[in-house]
Amino acid sequence: MIEQIFEMLENSEDELIAIRRELHKFPELSFEEVVTPKKIATYLKDLDIEHRTEVGGRGVVGYIRGKKGGKTVALRADFDALPIHEETGLPFASTVPGKMHACGHDGHTAALLLVAKSLKQQEHQLLGDVVLIFQFAEELAPGGAISMIEDGCLKDVDAIFGAHLWTPLPYGEIGFREGAFMGAADRFELTVKGRGGHGASPHETVDSITVATSIVQQLQQIVSRNVDPLKSAVISIGSFHAGEAFNVIPDTAKIVGTVRTFEEGIQSFIIERMNQVVNGICLAAGADYEFDYKKGYPTVVNSKTETEKLVQWSVSNLKNQKVIEIDPVMGGEDFAYYLKHVPGSFFFIGAGNESLGKTYPHHHPKFDFDESALLVAAKLLATAAVHYLEDEKLVGENLVECT
Amino acid sequence: MIEQIFEMLENSEDELIAIRRELHKFPELSFEEVVTPKKIATYLKDLDIEHRTEVGGRGVVGYIRGKKGGKTVALRADFDALPIHEETGLPFASTVPGKMHACGHDGHTAALLLVAKSLKQQEHQLLGDVVLIFQFAEELAPGGAISMIEDGCLKDVDAIFGAHLWTPLPYGEIGFREGAFMGAADRFELTVKGRGGHGASPHETVDSITVATSIVQQLQQIVSRNVDPLKSAVISIGSFHAGEAFNVIPDTAKIVGTVRTFEEGIQSFIIERMNQVVNGICLAAGADYEFDYKKGYPTVVNSKTETEKLVQWSVSNLKNQKVIEIDPVMGGEDFAYYLKHVPGSFFFIGAGNESLGKTYPHHHPKFDFDESALLVAAKLLATAAVHYLEDEKLVGENLVECT
Amino acid sequence: MIEQIFEMLENSEDELIAIRRELHKFPELSFEEVVTPKKIATYLKDLDIEHRTEVGGRGVVGYIRGKKGGKTVALRADFDALPIHEETGLPFASTVPGKMHACGHDGHTAALLLVAKSLKQQEHQLLGDVVLIFQFAEELAPGGAISMIEDGCLKDVDAIFGAHLWTPLPYGEIGFREGAFMGAADRFELTVKGRGGHGASPHETVDSITVATSIVQQLQQIVSRNVDPLKSAVISIGSFHAGEAFNVIPDTAKIVGTVRTFEEGIQSFIIERMNQVVNGICLAAGADYEFDYKKGYPTVVNSKTETEKLVQWSVSNLKNQKVIEIDPVMGGEDFAYYLKHVPGSFFFIGAGNESLGKTYPHHHPKFDFDESALLVAAKLLATAAVHYLEDEKLVGENLVECT
Amino acid sequence: MIEQIFEMLENSEDELIAIRRELHKFPELSFEEVVTPKKIATYLKDLDIEHRTEVGGRGVVGYIRGKKGGKTVALRADFDALPIHEETGLPFASTVPGKMHACGHDGHTAALLLVAKSLKQQEHQLLGDVVLIFQFAEELAPGGAISMIEDGCLKDVDAIFGAHLWTPLPYGEIGFREGAFMGAADRFELTVKGRGGHGASPHETVDSITVATSIVQQLQQIVSRNVDPLKSAVISIGSFHAGEAFNVIPDTAKIVGTVRTFEEGIQSFIIERMNQVVNGICLAAGADYEFDYKKGYPTVVNSKTETEKLVQWSVSNLKNQKVIEIDPVMGGEDFAYYLKHVPGSFFFIGAGNESLGKTYPHHHPKFDFDESALLVAAKLLATAAVHYLEDEKLVGENLVECT
Repeated sequence: MIEQIFEMLENSEDELIAIRRELHKFPELSFEEVVTPKKIATYLKDLDIEHRTEVGGRGVVGYIRGKKGGKTVALRADFDALPIHEETGLPFASTVPGKMHACGHDGHTAALLLVAKSLKQQEHQLLGDVVLIFQFAEELAPGGAISMIEDGCLKDVDAIFGAHLWTPLPYGEIGFREGAFMGAADRFELTVKGRGGHGASPHETVDSITVATSIVQQLQQIVSRNVDPLKSAVISIGSFHAGEAFNVIPDTAKIVGTVRTFEEGIQSFIIERMNQVVNGICLAAGADYEFDYKKGYPTVVNSKTETEKLVQWSVSNLKNQKVIEIDPVMGGEDFAYYLKHVPGSFFFIGAGNESLGKTYPHHHPKFDFDESALLVAAKLLATAAVHYLEDEKLVGENLVECT
Repeated sequence: MIEQIFEMLENSEDELIAIRRELHKFPELSFEEVVTPKKIATYLKDLDIEHRTEVGGRGVVGYIRGKKGGKTVALRADFDALPIHEETGLPFASTVPGKMHACGHDGHTAALLLVAKSLKQQEHQLLGDVVLIFQFAEELAPGGAISMIEDGCLKDVDAIFGAHLWTPLPYGEIGFREGAFMGAADRFELTVKGRGGHGASPHETVDSITVATSIVQQLQQIVSRNVDPLKSAVISIGSFHAGEAFNVIPDTAKIVGTVRTFEEGIQSFIIERMNQVVNGICLAAGADYEFDYKKGYPTVVNSKTETEKLVQWSVSNLKNQKVIEIDPVMGGEDFAYYLKHVPGSFFFIGAGNESLGKTYPHHHPKFDFDESALLVAAKLLATAAVHYLEDEKLVGENLVECT
Repeated sequence: MIEQIFEMLENSEDELIAIRRELHKFPELSFEEVVTPKKIATYLKDLDIEHRTEVGGRGVVGYIRGKKGGKTVALRADFDALPIHEETGLPFASTVPGKMHACGHDGHTAALLLVAKSLKQQEHQLLGDVVLIFQFAEELAPGGAISMIEDGCLKDVDAIFGAHLWTPLPYGEIGFREGAFMGAADRFELTVKGRGGHGASPHETVDSITVATSIVQQLQQIVSRNVDPLKSAVISIGSFHAGEAFNVIPDTAKIVGTVRTFEEGIQSFIIERMNQVVNGICLAAGADYEFDYKKGYPTVVNSKTETEKLVQWSVSNLKNQKVIEIDPVMGGEDFAYYLKHVPGSFFFIGAGNESLGKTYPHHHPKFDFDESALLVAAKLLATAAVHYLEDEKLVGENLVECT
Repeated sequence: MIEQIFEMLENSEDELIAIRRELHKFPELSFEEVVTPKKIATYLKDLDIEHRTEVGGRGVVGYIRGKKGGKTVALRADFDALPIHEETGLPFASTVPGKMHACGHDGHTAALLLVAKSLKQQEHQLLGDVVLIFQFAEELAPGGAISMIEDGCLKDVDAIFGAHLWTPLPYGEIGFREGAFMGAADRFELTVKGRGGHGASPHETVDSITVATSIVQQLQQIVSRNVDPLKSAVISIGSFHAGEAFNVIPDTAKIVGTVRTFEEGIQSFIIERMNQVVNGICLAAGADYEFDYKKGYPTVVNSKTETEKLVQWSVSNLKNQKVIEIDPVMGGEDFAYYLKHVPGSFFFIGAGNESLGKTYPHHHPKFDFDESALLVAAKLLATAAVHYLEDEKLVGENLVECT
C-alpha cells in the first residue's frame, strides 16, 4: 500500500507545492485564522473526508476510517503565520503587509492535505483510523493544541506524529530525537515606568529608556553567570518599544521577550533571577515596573517506542534520505501538549538548501525552504500513519493468537 | 495707552482662556497644521486686521499699522502640538488620541491673538507698525521660522519679541536672560542592523536589540566622561523601537534622540564621539548601522539692548510680577532664527503653580499650566510692542531734532 | 591482596590525615614548590621507594616494581596551592598569608603517599610496576604535566589513573565519566590603555576603568548571545586591577580571566568574538589595548575501557560508596596531557559534607573537604593499580596460553 | 623694593630650579613626609629665618618680621607627592618607585623657599609680617591644612595667597578667578561582596567583578541623566581592584573614586543617587556591599578684594605675563580651609609648554612643567606679600591721618 501512496504523492507534487504557495500568499496570525481553516475544510470536503471545523476554536480535524478493530493514529500540521514583514521577494510572497509564513507552517498544512488525499484513496486498506489534526495558533501561547485537545481531537487516538520543515537541516536529511527534543518556551513582558519629560532636562525625569536598556544588558548576565554552563537556557528580547518624539523622554518603555529551557529547575531559577534583576535595576534608577512572566509550551518529549519505530520506517521507506539523530532544539512547540496525552514523535524534515539560497533561519523576513522537502514530509507522515496501524494490528492479532 | 490696553486685556481674560482651551482641544502636529492657522486667520479677519496666510507654508502673519515714520516691531507665537497622548483628564483635554498641546503653544497663540485685538483698538496711537507672527512647526526641525523668514515675515522688522509660558518657573515670575538663553537642539536617528532570527537561537543572529541597548548605555558616557564638566551638554534618547513578536529577534532596532549644547565646539565634539561609539559597538557585535545626525535649531541669543529694555518695561508695567534673571535652558527654540536677522529678546512667563498641581514638565502627558499666566504673557507682549515703538520714535525724533 | 592493602590503609587513616594537614599548613604556589617535593621525596626515601626528584622541574616520581613481565600503571597526584588568602579558621590553616590549598591537592598527595606505602608492602605480590607521579604546578598553565612527561614520567606506562577530591559531590559518592570529562581551560589577559589624568578632568583623559568595565559587561554577551545554547562555554574574569589613587584616572586597567569550553570550534569562535569585542569597545572609547589569549589545558578525555573497568572495580571493592556517572565539569585539569599519551581515567571522590559545613566550592577562601574522603581516594587509587595489573596480566597470560 | 626682590629672584633662577629638581627626585606621599619638611627647615635655618616645624603634624612655618604695626600676610606652598609611578624619563625623575611629584608641589615649595630668601633680604623694608606656610598632605583628605590651622599657622594672619603651577594653562599666562574657583573633592570607597569560587563554575558564585563593573557603568548615568546639565559634577573611579588568580572569581571587588561638585545641593543629591545605584545593582545580583563616602575639601572661594588686587599687582609687575580670568576648576584644594578663616586668593601660574612637550595633565605619570614658570610663581608670591603689606599700611596710615 505504501508504494501506491508514494506514487500518488509523487504525482501530486505540483499540487502540493501549489497549495503551499497559495497558503503562503495569505498568512493569518495566530488566533486570527479565518480563511485558512476554511480552505482546509473545503479541501477535505471536496475529497469527501469526514471532518469537524472550529475544533477548539479555529482548528479543523479530518477522519479517515480504516478497518474496524484497529488502532487510531493522529497526524498533526499547524497553519498560523507570524507578525513579520516578508522580504523574500518570492513571486508567491505574502500579500499581507507585516504578516508572513516565516516558519514553514504553510508547508506542513499543504503536506498533510496531500497525505489526507493519498490516505483517503487507500482508506479501505488502512488497518485502523487516521485523525488529521490541522491546528491553529502554534506560534502564540497558549497555542491551539490545548483547546483542540479539550475539544476532543485526541479522542480514541493511540499515538501521534508531527513533522516540522527545518532549514537548519539540509534537504536530504531527517532529524529525530528520543526524549526532550524541543525546549520550554516562555514569554515575558516588562514595562519600565519612569517619569517622562523634555529631552533637554533629563534631571527632571526618570528616563525609562536608559533604565530598560540597563535591564536588557543585565538580563544577559543571568545566562552567562547564573545558569550552570552545562545546562541550556536562553533569554531573548523580541521587542523593545518606547517613546514617540525625538525630544521627549517617555514615561514608559516596554520589553517583550522569551525564555527557553529544558529543565523546570532552571526555568524557575531564571524567573527568580529576572525578578531580582528587574527589581534591583529599577530601584537603582528610582523607576517602577510591571513584570509579567507567562510560562509557555512545555518541553516536547518524544516517546521511546514511537521514535524508534519512526526511525526504522524512515530508513526502510525513504531510502534517499539520511536519517540522523539530532541535538535538542531550544524552540518551543505546542506539540508538547499532545505528547502529554498520547505517545508519539515529533521530527524534522531537512529543508535548507545552500545552493538555492534557502539558508535563512526560521522567523527571519527572508525565510524560505527547499520545496522538495514537502514531498518528504508528506511521505513520512503517510508512512508513519500506515505503518503504525499495521504494526499495532499485527501486535494485536498476534496477541489474540497467543491466547 | 498701555493702561487702556491692559484694561482691555484684563476684561478679555475669559475670552483669552476660552481661545486657549479651544486650541488645546484640537492639537495639530508640526507641519500638519490645517485647522489652527485657519482659526487664527478667521480671528484676525473678524478684527479686520490685515494679514497673510500660508506664510512659509502654514504660518499666518498679521499687520497693525501705526503712525508713519516709526519703526516696526514683531511679536511671535507658535501654534503646533506634540505627538504625546494627553493624560491630564482636563475637561478641555485633547480630542485627538496621541496628540497634545504639551508645551503651551496653545497659550502663546491665544495670548498673541488677544494682543492683536488690544493693539488693533489702539492702532491710531501706535508710533510704528506691529507684525504678528503666528508660526507653525516649532517642535520639529527644520521648524517653521526659516521658511516664514524666507517668505518675508521679518520684512522691515526692526526688533522681535517672543514669550514662552514656562511651568518650571512659578506663576508670578518673569524670566529673562541676555546672551545665550536656549541651547542648540539637534536630532539623531540610529538604525542598528543586525541579523534577525528565532529567539531560541540567538547564536544564529546578530541581536539588534542588545547591540542598540549597549549603544544607549555607552552614549551616556560621552556626557559623563568626555565633555568638560564645566560645559553643558545633553544626549537623550526619545524613542527606541525594535521588533514585533516576543520570540523573533528583530533584524533592526531604531533609536531616535536629541543632543543639546550651547557651544559649537562641544556640539561637533559630541557628534564625533557619537560616531565613534556607534561604530565601535556595532563592530564589537558584528552589526551594521545607519546613523543620521541633523543639527537642529541654533542657540537662542538674546540681544543686550532689547533684553535690558524688556526688563525695564516689565518692572515698570507688571508690578505684581517678579522679574528675574534665569539660567540658560537646554531646550531648543527656532526663535533663534529670527534673532539671527534682527535683535530681540525671548523670555519666559512663569506658569507653574504647585498649589494647583501645575508642576509637570513641558512635554509630559500631564503637562498643564496656570492660566493666569496667559494674561501676563499678553500684557508683556503688548508692552514690548508699544514701548519699543515709543522708545525708538523718541530716539528717532531726538535724532532729527539734533540735526 | 587488596584486602590487606585496605586494612593497612584503614589503620593508617590518622597518618593520612596528619600528612594532609601538614601539607595544608605550608602551601606553595605553582612553579614555586620547593619544600613540598622535598617532603614527598623524604617520605618515599624513608619507605625505601625508588624515586626521581626534579622531574620536569619540580616533580617527584616513585617506582614500585612488581613481578617482571607485567604491565606498568601510573597513579598521579598534584601538590601545588593557590594564591588565595585562607579564611577557614581551621587549626591547620595555611601559615602563609595569601596562599592556600583551596583545591584539595594537599589531600591528593597525602592519599598517594599512603598508597605508595601500602603498595610497597605488597610489592612482591604486584603483577607489574606502579609509577607514582607527584606533579607540581597543576593550577597554572602550562602546568607541570607536559614537562614531567617530557622528562620521562610516562616511560613504559600502559595506563594512568588520577583522583580529584570534589566537594560539590557529597562524601559517599564516586563520580565517573567516559569521554570528555573536564573542559579546556584557557587564560587571557587584557590591558586597556587609555590616557590617565586628574579625576576631576575626565574630558582630558581616556578613562581606562570605564572602558575596561564596558568590556567586562560586553564579554558576558558572548556566552549569552553568540554561543549555541546547547553548547557549554564560560568566560570568567578572575582579576581586575587599575589605579592607585582615588583621584587619578589611571592610564591602564588590566583584566585577567579564563575561558572554558569542551569543543575546539566553540573555543576558536569565542577567541574571535573576544577579539572583536575588545577591539570594538576600545575603538568606541578611543583607547588602545593589548590582548593576550593563551590556550590552556585541553579537554580531559577518559578512555572507555579504563573508565568501565574503574567503575567495576569501584563497585566491587568500595561497597559503602555510591558509584555514579556525572556530568562533565568546566574546570580544566592538566591530567589531560597524560591521557593524550596513554589511556586512563580521571575521577572524582565525593568530599562535600553539608552537616560538617564542608560546602564551599573549590578555589574559595573557606574551601575545605570531609577528610573521610581521603581514605576513599587512597583505596580507589590502590584498587586501580592492583586490579589494572591483575587484569592485564591475566589477559597477557591467556594470550600466551592461547598460542 | 619689588625691583630688588625681582632682581634677586632672577639671579637665583638656577638655585630655584635645582631645589625643585632635588625635591622631585625624592617624593614623599601625603602624611608620610619626613625628609622634605627637614629639607625645608634646614633651608630656612640656613637663611636664619625664624620657623616652627611639625606644625599640625608635618608642616613647617617660617616667619619674616617687617615693620611693627603692619598687617600679616601668609603665603602657602604644599610639598607632598602622589602614588604614581613616574614615566617622564627626566634626568631628575623620581628615585622612588610608585611615587612621584606629578602635581607640581615640588615647584610650589621651591618657589616659596626662594621667596623666603628674597623677602628675608628686604626684611627691614617690609611694612608688616610675612608667614610662610609649607604644608604637608594636600593630596589626601583630610589634608594638612586643617591641623596646621589648628596648630596656629594662621595666627594674626590677615590674608593669604597661594599659587598652583598649572600645565593646562600655557607658560606666559596667569589665571585668576573671584568666588568659587576649585570644586569640592570627595572620596568614596565601595567594596562589592559577592561569593567567590572557581572561574569555571560562575553559577556557584556571586561574581563580584561583574557586579562592580555594572556599578561603574551605572554610576556614569548619574552625571549624564540625574544632574542638571547646567550644573557641574564629576564622578570618577580612580582604582578598581579585585582578584588574584585568573581562574578564581573573587569574593570581593573594591572601587575607590572621587566626586567633584561646586554646590552642596548637587553634592548631597549625588551621594543619595550613588547609594541608590549601589544598593539596586547589588540587590539585582544578590551581592552585599560596603559603601563609604567621605566629603573632602570644600570649594575654594577666593575673596573679591584680594583677588582684584592680585590682578592689579600682576598686571603692573609681571608685564610679560598675560593675566586672565579663567573658568572654575573641578579639582579640589585644601587651600579652601585657609580661605574659610581669612580672605585671600588662590591662583594659577601657566606652566604648560607645547613646544617643550609639557602637555600632560596633572596626576599623569608623564606630567612635567615648564620650569620658567617657577620664577613667575616666586615673583607673584613675593609681589603679593610686599604689595599687600604696603596697601594695608597705606590704608592704615590714611585712616590714622583721617582721624
